[in-house]
Amino acid sequence: MTTDEKYMQLALDLAASARGNTNPNPLVGAVIVKDGVIVGTGLHRKAGEPHAEVHAFRMAGEHAKGATLYVTLEPCSHFGKTPPCANLVKESEVSRVVVAMQDPNPAVAGKGIQLLRDAGIEVEVGVLEEQSQRLNERFIHNMLTKRPFVISKYAMTLDGKIAAHTGHSKWVTGAEAREDVHHIRHEVDAILVGVGTVIADNPSLTTRLNNRQGKNPIRIIMDSSLRTPAHANVLNVEEAQTIIVCSEEVKQEQISAFEAKGVTVLPVRRDSEGLHIDDMLEKLYVLGITDILVEGGSVINASFLQSAAIDKYVIYVAPKVLGGRLSLTPIAGYNAATMDEAWDVEFDSFKKLGQDLRIIAYPKKGEGK
Amino acid sequence: MTTDEKYMQLALDLAASARGNTNPNPLVGAVIVKDGVIVGTGLHRKAGEPHAEVHAFRMAGEHAKGATLYVTLEPCSHFGKTPPCANLVKESEVSRVVVAMQDPNPAVAGKGIQLLRDAGIEVEVGVLEEQSQRLNERFIHNMLTKRPFVISKYAMTLDGKIAAHTGHSKWVTGAEAREDVHHIRHEVDAILVGVGTVIADNPSLTTRLNNRQGKNPIRIIMDSSLRTPAHANVLNVEEAQTIIVCSEEVKQEQISAFEAKGVTVLPVRRDSEGLHIDDMLEKLYVLGITDILVEGGSVINASFLQSAAIDKYVIYVAPKVLGGRLSLTPIAGYNAATMDEAWDVEFDSFKKLGQDLRIIAYPKKGEGK
Repeated sequence: MTTDEKYMQLALDLAASARGNTNPNPLVGAVIVKDGVIVGTGLHRKAGEPHAEVHAFRMAGEHAKGATLYVTLEPCSHFGKTPPCANLVKESEVSRVVVAMQDPNPAVAGKGIQLLRDAGIEVEVGVLEEQSQRLNERFIHNMLTKRPFVISKYAMTLDGKIAAHTGHSKWVTGAEAREDVHHIRHEVDAILVGVGTVIADNPSLTTRLNNRQGKNPIRIIMDSSLRTPAHANVLNVEEAQTIIVCSEEVKQEQISAFEAKGVTVLPVRRDSEGLHIDDMLEKLYVLGITDILVEGGSVINASFLQSAAIDKYVIYVAPKVLGGRLSLTPIAGYNAATMDEAWDVEFDSFKKLGQDLRIIAYPKKGEGK
Repeated sequence: MTTDEKYMQLALDLAASARGNTNPNPLVGAVIVKDGVIVGTGLHRKAGEPHAEVHAFRMAGEHAKGATLYVTLEPCSHFGKTPPCANLVKESEVSRVVVAMQDPNPAVAGKGIQLLRDAGIEVEVGVLEEQSQRLNERFIHNMLTKRPFVISKYAMTLDGKIAAHTGHSKWVTGAEAREDVHHIRHEVDAILVGVGTVIADNPSLTTRLNNRQGKNPIRIIMDSSLRTPAHANVLNVEEAQTIIVCSEEVKQEQISAFEAKGVTVLPVRRDSEGLHIDDMLEKLYVLGITDILVEGGSVINASFLQSAAIDKYVIYVAPKVLGGRLSLTPIAGYNAATMDEAWDVEFDSFKKLGQDLRIIAYPKKGEGK
């Protein structure tokens, strides 16, 4: 690891510590180093609060002059909720700026870097770029597609079953893996299930963490014809917000009844396969949802797969074997005729969590079937 | 690692080098050390050939006197195809013997060790015992149960599918994982499939290795009513032996037709679920089959699971997602009503093979449902 990489790794670690709190903004960390000494550190903690560079320069004060700034994302060049950081960097008189990656927003990408270079500052781009891209996979996806980043999560047995044929699935995995899911719930804007799950299990879909206060994600229920029962736990909007996605064909009086309970009802298009996933995702992004954890059953998961709408897989494999011709598998839906029709993914990591195995995977690049 | 463990590890490595060649005998390695110098090494290469200790003592000659013998399995105390090794050890005048594990055969366990101790030799038992037990899992199982050791192997997608609903499955995994399967085929006595696979795919079930000559396992076809087609590749007994297991109700003239082709036909009991797995395994062991790689589809795998007859799982998970309500899963059969009815296993290891993941697991101890 070079010296540049060492400080950039620190900046990435600072950035990552705010995971789950910065949406819709990216995770950004900054470190200012002068003569081998760290004189400033900062991170973006929350949307509306100062950017990472602002904190770092406040700490560095006069020491910034002639120093090197390490920042995980290109300093912004536009006025948002805060003034552009590129100007601040310029005024600080640092002599060198190391950036992990360009701003993914096509409208501004490169402009902050150009502004600095025009001011005579040496700028290096691409140090630990991959790590930075992974850290902000959600933000990058938002910028490029104007849709929420979709994480498909399921827990299956070693023979690929998520539930018995009766739907019984408590539990596939052990305590550590289930705690891991609650950490993800804490980090995402929203969690999505189908109305079938609401009717069968009546879940609360809130975040339960052992050691700290969890943030409850918004609950999204895919419920084409508004069948969510009146007593459903997800209708308790004091715990967390709820969005019910239904078909555009549903009558306004039905919708009003749910809205009276404090629930947001979002009508979307229907096609032969059910609710139109692309239309739903575009509308959810407009409502401010930047990432969604899909905890659906086989049918919901299939809808997302068939719409090429899964951006990340978080799969738990439990050390048990269920068998059963009618047992439920993670993804149902369309019946391919050959194995060649499978969607390619890339394994990212394997981790033992208690007795279970967690596999993280991403759709293979260019797999836009 | 202690000095004893270091030499025992070497003995285990020597033993393991004969993997696949010693059946029905165990894998055994021996190292003789005097004054910190290895003076003798040996391994059991093949049934009928000398035991590991014999080779090691031949090499050591006079140097064995006062030396330490490391041997991965208790020296035998009975006359088999060769004279008892315990006598040889005694006569060699080694002063110390380190044994990884007792002989698992209940009829002789401990007798070899006792014979050495009675002769005034210091004997230590249990150095790297777990590794030795794992190395000889097949032999230990044979000794304790008088049945073949059954390895269940399947390759599935990340969403738990082994084939499309049409049965198409070429290929789930990549080249490295498929080569790994051929290594296992080389090491086992027999490979087992159902007649359904023979009819659908007409496989040869031979061993194809890239870099060396593979040993072809005996092919076992579960074929209740002798439906194996006359042109099936598995009936080419010049490539490898074939055993067709059928129901006891099949007529002798049907059996004779297959026997005329050089195939062994093995009638076994039937029950409501199909061929009786326990009866089949006991009869196959009598025929000299000590381990079987089950490469069945969902139905065969379910038969073995429901008979609690799987001793080891070798599972390949491919980075692809197939979906499909009717796609085939690794294990079908009995439909449990709840997740609590799942069979517990223990993950042993995870290994990346090319793009695929291999998971090795064992039934959890005491899981004799």
